Amino acid sequence: MTVAPFDHPYLSGLVGDEEVASFFSAAAELEAMLAFEVALAKAEAVAGVIPADAAPAIARAAHRFSPDVASLRTATARDGVVVPDLVRQLRAAVGEPHARHLHFGATSQDVIDSGLMLRLSRVLPLLEERLDGLIGGLAALAATFGTHSLMGRTRMQPAIPITVADRLDSWRQPLERVAERLEIFALEGLAVQFGGAAGTLEKLGDKAAAVRAALADELGLVDTPQWHSQRDRIGELAGLLAAITGSLGKIGQDIVLMADRGGEIMLTGGGGSSAMPHKQNPVAAEALVTLARFNAAQLGGIAQAAVHEQERSGAAWTLEWLILPQMVVACGAALRLGGELFAAIRQIGTE
Amino acid sequence: MTVAPFDHPYLSGLVGDEEVASFFSAAAELEAMLAFEVALAKAEAVAGVIPADAAPAIARAAHRFSPDVASLRTATARDGVVVPDLVRQLRAAVGEPHARHLHFGATSQDVIDSGLMLRLSRVLPLLEERLDGLIGGLAALAATFGTHSLMGRTRMQPAIPITVADRLDSWRQPLERVAERLEIFALEGLAVQFGGAAGTLEKLGDKAAAVRAALADELGLVDTPQWHSQRDRIGELAGLLAAITGSLGKIGQDIVLMADRGGEIMLTGGGGSSAMPHKQNPVAAEALVTLARFNAAQLGGIAQAAVHEQERSGAAWTLEWLILPQMVVACGAALRLGGELFAAIRQIGTE
Amino acid sequence: MTVAPFDHPYLSGLVGDEEVASFFSAAAELEAMLAFEVALAKAEAVAGVIPADAAPAIARAAHRFSPDVASLRTATARDGVVVPDLVRQLRAAVGEPHARHLHFGATSQDVIDSGLMLRLSRVLPLLEERLDGLIGGLAALAATFGTHSLMGRTRMQPAIPITVADRLDSWRQPLERVAERLEIFALEGLAVQFGGAAGTLEKLGDKAAAVRAALADELGLVDTPQWHSQRDRIGELAGLLAAITGSLGKIGQDIVLMADRGGEIMLTGGGGSSAMPHKQNPVAAEALVTLARFNAAQLGGIAQAAVHEQERSGAAWTLEWLILPQMVVACGAALRLGGELFAAIRQIGTE
Amino acid sequence: MTVAPFDHPYLSGLVGDEEVASFFSAAAELEAMLAFEVALAKAEAVAGVIPADAAPAIARAAHRFSPDVASLRTATARDGVVVPDLVRQLRAAVGEPHARHLHFGATSQDVIDSGLMLRLSRVLPLLEERLDGLIGGLAALAATFGTHSLMGRTRMQPAIPITVADRLDSWRQPLERVAERLEIFALEGLAVQFGGAAGTLEKLGDKAAAVRAALADELGLVDTPQWHSQRDRIGELAGLLAAITGSLGKIGQDIVLMADRGGEIMLTGGGGSSAMPHKQNPVAAEALVTLARFNAAQLGGIAQAAVHEQERSGAAWTLEWLILPQMVVACGAALRLGGELFAAIRQIGTE
Repeated sequence: MTVAPFDHPYLSGLVGDEEVASFFSAAAELEAMLAFEVALAKAEAVAGVIPADAAPAIARAAHRFSPDVASLRTATARDGVVVPDLVRQLRAAVGEPHARHLHFGATSQDVIDSGLMLRLSRVLPLLEERLDGLIGGLAALAATFGTHSLMGRTRMQPAIPITVADRLDSWRQPLERVAERLEIFALEGLAVQFGGAAGTLEKLGDKAAAVRAALADELGLVDTPQWHSQRDRIGELAGLLAAITGSLGKIGQDIVLMADRGGEIMLTGGGGSSAMPHKQNPVAAEALVTLARFNAAQLGGIAQAAVHEQERSGAAWTLEWLILPQMVVACGAALRLGGELFAAIRQIGTE
Repeated sequence: MTVAPFDHPYLSGLVGDEEVASFFSAAAELEAMLAFEVALAKAEAVAGVIPADAAPAIARAAHRFSPDVASLRTATARDGVVVPDLVRQLRAAVGEPHARHLHFGATSQDVIDSGLMLRLSRVLPLLEERLDGLIGGLAALAATFGTHSLMGRTRMQPAIPITVADRLDSWRQPLERVAERLEIFALEGLAVQFGGAAGTLEKLGDKAAAVRAALADELGLVDTPQWHSQRDRIGELAGLLAAITGSLGKIGQDIVLMADRGGEIMLTGGGGSSAMPHKQNPVAAEALVTLARFNAAQLGGIAQAAVHEQERSGAAWTLEWLILPQMVVACGAALRLGGELFAAIRQIGTE
Repeated sequence: MTVAPFDHPYLSGLVGDEEVASFFSAAAELEAMLAFEVALAKAEAVAGVIPADAAPAIARAAHRFSPDVASLRTATARDGVVVPDLVRQLRAAVGEPHARHLHFGATSQDVIDSGLMLRLSRVLPLLEERLDGLIGGLAALAATFGTHSLMGRTRMQPAIPITVADRLDSWRQPLERVAERLEIFALEGLAVQFGGAAGTLEKLGDKAAAVRAALADELGLVDTPQWHSQRDRIGELAGLLAAITGSLGKIGQDIVLMADRGGEIMLTGGGGSSAMPHKQNPVAAEALVTLARFNAAQLGGIAQAAVHEQERSGAAWTLEWLILPQMVVACGAALRLGGELFAAIRQIGTE
Repeated sequence: MTVAPFDHPYLSGLVGDEEVASFFSAAAELEAMLAFEVALAKAEAVAGVIPADAAPAIARAAHRFSPDVASLRTATARDGVVVPDLVRQLRAAVGEPHARHLHFGATSQDVIDSGLMLRLSRVLPLLEERLDGLIGGLAALAATFGTHSLMGRTRMQPAIPITVADRLDSWRQPLERVAERLEIFALEGLAVQFGGAAGTLEKLGDKAAAVRAALADELGLVDTPQWHSQRDRIGELAGLLAAITGSLGKIGQDIVLMADRGGEIMLTGGGGSSAMPHKQNPVAAEALVTLARFNAAQLGGIAQAAVHEQERSGAAWTLEWLILPQMVVACGAALRLGGELFAAIRQIGTE
């Protein structure tokens, strides 16, 4: 099944991104959820919440664990979330006497949300690296073509001549700003989620804070009070993703318009047509516009999920699952396409 | 890669729909595109546009054709659309002297858009059938529980007592109206797209109209002038899909609120919790809310794609590919979940 | 206060529409709500639900009535809807013994929703008339310039030459289709809302159906069962409005792109620049794109309001108030601008 | 004309905010634009770009200036922006020999964008102050009712008991985070826009940087290179506004749900019904949900405006005008309603 082009055998070649998408496979989510359970057991064993030998037993079982995916699927349909069945399967793999110590004091949302954050902690550096690459690419283009002349255009009409450096600056500066915002988010926004049934860690008593801190440390996430019904970080991240695709969409639109006139830009490659073999379509530039508009629409959807009722909203939370991974991959794809597009530029403007 | 829950090994159990999604697999799209090429060759052979023996040769080759998907992927990334490479591969399979007659006078958009309509002509009856099932299910519930009493609620506060039939009527009537609109769309909106390079069928001369009519007839689609840059039918369909999920989302929200109080509704099944085994969560009802809000956000995205510049907008067209299939599957999933939910109702209101 | 450009002293010159907006003034809403109360009293008097002489007394009082708007404002803030205070004021104006018969069996939502439908029944013919004007304008342009030549463009690149008639056809056909859909909606979708406290007309007993039918007839609206929690008609209308602005946005985008090259289009008028007096900006064409994208975003918002819980959702209903009037005015403005733009065309394509 | 409830004589009582809206009146925009022209003249006079006595002459004329709004309206319709006619009128008021020095080197977008930033520099502290008030209000509620017990609810079902402090913490923390982000934005994001015709300040030669710095200083804005085609700051601000309304919408939803059950919350006030005088509707809480969903939809619209082509996009820029002011006022209204709602709480939870 390949309903979304991001997952599609051939459409993903255009709008997908294998590297970024790999963090949103079922396997990657399962791995992250197992990492949570192992880290939790370790933190709880150190704190004396569970027996010392339960932690290595859980780690060993998780390491060897191979889930029954058909069962996970059925259970997700029933429970609305994969975790209860995953914990059941994993408990069977751990066996007694340690099985009962698995997932102690945790709830499904702890596993899912921390598992998401864990994967984001790998994805964001990748996005940052690509963003830096694009910023560098634009600087290099400016070094080569910056003094060339270009007709400045306002309201789709010729205005006055500018330099290529002027246009490239206006492309680069928003990327620099969003790179800085993304870096801050990667440092402060990737927070462990650990709250138990209703956010109070009621089973951990006075050891709750210590366990949570150790868990965060083990997973490389920021230690914060539970945030299971506070979705502002998700919204902030979505805003950053849309800011990146939006700024790249502006660049894509500009390049499409430049490609439509002789002399403003020369690109190698470019797509063919089944009816008109002479055409050289600026496919990557168009796709940047597509991805910008896609993420803009999705951003509105994520913002709706902020209305997350009570201690856990099944409805609003699931809405995030339908949208956020696609936004991340769309962002990854836009950064990839941006790199390809900049590399294909042979000339901008005229000497 | 399973970025979208609709394609996901276990999340699709909750929010996906295998039957509907099957029409949006790569295999289903390829099959539909081949059906277009075969039907086009047949129509052109009958009209004397291509040699009579080219059509069966093309049909035979298409029947045996097994695409090189890796090549399709690379080519889609380059061309922005799969068709040029698909035609190239298929021409190689047809061989000379007939290969040159394949895809005669057509362009990529003809293949993609007609292929979409062909698949929608299979999907819409399925959605209609499910919708009828839900309407029948609500009528049956009214027959059983209609005279029961229920507290009417306005602005989330008790208002005055109503009957269960009153509430069920307000659930059923919008489904009846949208069923009627969907039926009309299925009759009038599923139009063949055939225009050639820029919509003028310039290679078919005075046989253009006859070929298009025969092509439409062969594919079971409505014969209309080319609409490659007129995306209103896509927008109308998206509106219908969101109307269905929206009306079901209202039902889901109501059931979630009823389940939160003793006595208003009794459901069998319901999801478990990893932390609180005593809970019976109204998972399917929540998922209806999720899917309604998802499709609402997507509808805004499809509406942006109406700004489709000139004879073909790569950017706006690709945006449809990212959104429409997911909307159809979300609608299919909501109809499926609605059926499961209604079947799980053991009691509504009090005698 | 003029937060929205539609209401703004000078911005409304660009994106507003005085004629359409006049139906969404406070005065127009009050007039429509009074018309509802008068028609209701008349229908109830005929049916013997209220005394025969109450109806003319109510009509007279409504005719002379001048509301205390400051009180309405305070009360709306408190009650979430203007009707309770309006009814209170109007009752005082009617005086006893007839005051108690005013608004009998009705609730706030009946007044607001029927009042909206009443105004829409005036607005939609206006939109239809403008739409017909644009369709005629495009036909006239085709008669004059249809045989001219134009470079067809796909993916923002020159494809093959087409005629001006080809491009004008692709502009006109979606307008024709949406005009037909709008006409059907104007006939079938403008439904009276009359349900009482929770939709059951519990105070009218066996005269409920007759009173509702007479009320609908008096107001010139379709007689249907109450639909206060069934917002599909609102969603359908919003879809039509966005379809109109979307199709006009495509035309605007095309004209903007044509204006950016010598010879494709010649327009009279066009906006000036404070820095570059030589420029002739295609302002109306750009505004069509703006209004298309605005209504596309709003359509997503209206679709969220479909999740309207129980017998009346304060939250979802109010969301419609924030969005729908602006969508109607945006549509009116786009139709107005379309007419101005077509009238400004001096030439398209080359002979 | 009062199409938008934010501008409406009585609906603004519910969803509007007079104080915040006042910054988006035509008068406020004109005042800000005049302030820009006066500050620019002063900066240019100091730098020797225009004669020293031109600046006070311009300041005096601006101080006495009373615009011809009808002319501004006609001109905005023609030019797509009010500035050319405003400058023309103001030049007439200044008179020669100084008139020619007004607006020297500037373009419309400099005036509009800097004028917006100038008003935002007044509005944001107001929003921050209200946000701080709400954070303090929640802390005070926690001090009073924090130890009370409340049933924690997940997936709309009773989970386990929590304290009122637990729920209040989950309401307060996102507000604290967004307050911090808003403060940073207010310090760094409110940037002067000054670029001239196409962003290059081509008329100011080597004095461009000095004039821009002095202009920024005069207006109290951050000095940055021109950003007229870089709309990321607008997107970031919209994200903050939606984050505030989203977090308040979650609180509103929770309160609505609490009010629907005896004992969880006691509120004074609450709205009445025209049909059911006994009802106490949690109107302010519902309106918070409405405003959250409204701004969520608008955020998607602003994100579309990021695709801002070339040196100035009339279409994308105007789209911001249609959306951003409403988002700011919606945010102001939500903060106002939040304060009223918290003040109305008489009890939460049970001892």
